[in-house]
Amino acid sequence: MKLKIAVLPGDGIGPEVTEQAIKALNAIALEFNHQFSFKQADVGAIAIDKTGAPLPDVTLELCKSSDAILFGAIGDPKYDNAEGDVRPEQGLLKLRKELGLFANIRPVKAFEALLDFSPLKRHLIKGVDISIYRELTGGVYFGKKETAEDGSYASDLCEYSTSEIERISHLAFKAAMERRKKVTLIDKANVLDTSRLWRKTVTELAKSYPEVTLDFLYVDNAAMQMILNPKQFDVILTENMFGDIISDEASVIGGSIGLLPSASIGAKHALFEPIHGSYPQATGKGIANPIAAILSAAMLMEHFGLFEEAEMIKGAVEKSLKLGITTPDLGVRHERMTTSKVGDFIADFISNPS
Amino acid sequence: MKLKIAVLPGDGIGPEVTEQAIKALNAIALEFNHQFSFKQADVGAIAIDKTGAPLPDVTLELCKSSDAILFGAIGDPKYDNAEGDVRPEQGLLKLRKELGLFANIRPVKAFEALLDFSPLKRHLIKGVDISIYRELTGGVYFGKKETAEDGSYASDLCEYSTSEIERISHLAFKAAMERRKKVTLIDKANVLDTSRLWRKTVTELAKSYPEVTLDFLYVDNAAMQMILNPKQFDVILTENMFGDIISDEASVIGGSIGLLPSASIGAKHALFEPIHGSYPQATGKGIANPIAAILSAAMLMEHFGLFEEAEMIKGAVEKSLKLGITTPDLGVRHERMTTSKVGDFIADFISNPS
Ligand SMILES: [Mg+2]
Ligand SMILES: [Mg+2]
Repeated sequence: MKLKIAVLPGDGIGPEVTEQAIKALNAIALEFNHQFSFKQADVGAIAIDKTGAPLPDVTLELCKSSDAILFGAIGDPKYDNAEGDVRPEQGLLKLRKELGLFANIRPVKAFEALLDFSPLKRHLIKGVDISIYRELTGGVYFGKKETAEDGSYASDLCEYSTSEIERISHLAFKAAMERRKKVTLIDKANVLDTSRLWRKTVTELAKSYPEVTLDFLYVDNAAMQMILNPKQFDVILTENMFGDIISDEASVIGGSIGLLPSASIGAKHALFEPIHGSYPQATGKGIANPIAAILSAAMLMEHFGLFEEAEMIKGAVEKSLKLGITTPDLGVRHERMTTSKVGDFIADFISNPS
Repeated sequence: MKLKIAVLPGDGIGPEVTEQAIKALNAIALEFNHQFSFKQADVGAIAIDKTGAPLPDVTLELCKSSDAILFGAIGDPKYDNAEGDVRPEQGLLKLRKELGLFANIRPVKAFEALLDFSPLKRHLIKGVDISIYRELTGGVYFGKKETAEDGSYASDLCEYSTSEIERISHLAFKAAMERRKKVTLIDKANVLDTSRLWRKTVTELAKSYPEVTLDFLYVDNAAMQMILNPKQFDVILTENMFGDIISDEASVIGGSIGLLPSASIGAKHALFEPIHGSYPQATGKGIANPIAAILSAAMLMEHFGLFEEAEMIKGAVEKSLKLGITTPDLGVRHERMTTSKVGDFIADFISNPS
């Protein structure tokens, strides 16, 4: 397969972890005879420094003309008190909007080698394997906002249409078909009209996927269940804000945020990025964990139906964890491994699994 | 002190756990020479059975003319598919509204004797002592709701006024003054206008409490921090929906929902209830844990400034836990203790601490 991949390393540790993801993809290309071409562009603080804009036109054009985007991380403390459009984070928000990335997908997995890193007890997380589908462009984060002139009142409107609900729901149900065939819709249908619309729309749509079991959970109960029994979940489907809260909560049960990849999918475009941020304090020290970025590359493979390739990347990651060939955030068992060395090991293992 | 206490035992295990709370309060009255009078009324399914209404007028009148309300639990499976106003839960919602109970207060504490019951690792929860102040009558749960006639669109409006924010914030800051002098406001001020109003209003109000440190946390980050490091929290202050999610999440870290009391406070009225439900399957079996109800009675004492009395109740509860004089949900160390026996022990210990 030929894939044009836009690489947006961004700020902080973004470039060094993205580099490891590219190593893995190059090893895959060689192994499976694919042609992956990589073109790089700036986004975030580095783009502001160079051009004044967090998402320069040339970057957006590259993304639009590519098959997929490999994204690093953005954010720099020097822009923390900057206003409006000159904040690095605006680069990603604008990119999501311009490319219509309406679904955010986050796998949460407890790696066998890392069970003891979790804040939760081992028996609760052993075997956890969740895929969270969060609606990304609707709901209260994007609804009409008002603040009274005298500052005594404010409001935010949460809105959803059936078409917004359907397009992400189809993705979630299709994913469930490839997994354990269970979808849990998280909502607050006992209180909210938008939640009732979600429940009605998803219930109707579920009829097209008769093999998939559909469950419902109120968001407050879901926040408990994610701690009490995370193994009950297969695919989670939810609206934007509930997804923000529940996916962040879920992100800590695996024990390290440095392991978690994500995908943001639209009708025509797809972006893959680690969920961790730019972690400026770690920049250039070789201590950034590249696994989230590398697993994001595996999600990229899955997106194009390259499941064997994805499995090979994931297998190499698991091998590195098992052997303790990991960055210091996961404890050092054998020796001190740098970001680059971990990336080299994973790429080498893809080329020569032994 | 003279206190007229309305007792609303409600459904399921409500009556049996409430009975134990009254035992404890009677022991306190005797010990401290208070006059507590108890008058009972129906609410929930039992009220529907008798009168057709989940909150009969006579119950509401009793509550209005009392100093405080001791509430059990409501809900009965036979009304699960009932519509509208005949659902037992409406009894509590109506009561909150009629009495203007705008603040829900939930303490979350890790009891030394029960550290191993938590889904979280012991070192994370040892010493946890949080008090959550959740706004209860505003926000998106009570804002305007719309569903398009053709069913293709729905919306919910989240609204807040500064006065709604201020009245609960004063309660939270006053509580912090009696505790470790830290308030954490949970919001989503990077996205929502209502959150920015909360942040601005609370920041301004905090100037009246110079000894209290005010922290801010986005709700998605808070959902992580509640698992990663719950000990960082003293008083949590937040709006209605975030409070619903975060307080339910927090409720599981202590290891048992059967231990957690709550208070709902208004300008003139106050209601105290365990956070657990009516648990119909356990009704009449003597297995319901009365501690949440008994600790709700301790919150009632605190509400009237009877701190020594509250401490005595809490001390007796801790003693029962330490000795393993607990209902089966907490494991049985010495012998099988019933709801009533646990209540007797706690009341006796108040009378004769040994
Ligand atoms: Mg988030
Ligand atoms: Mg709740």
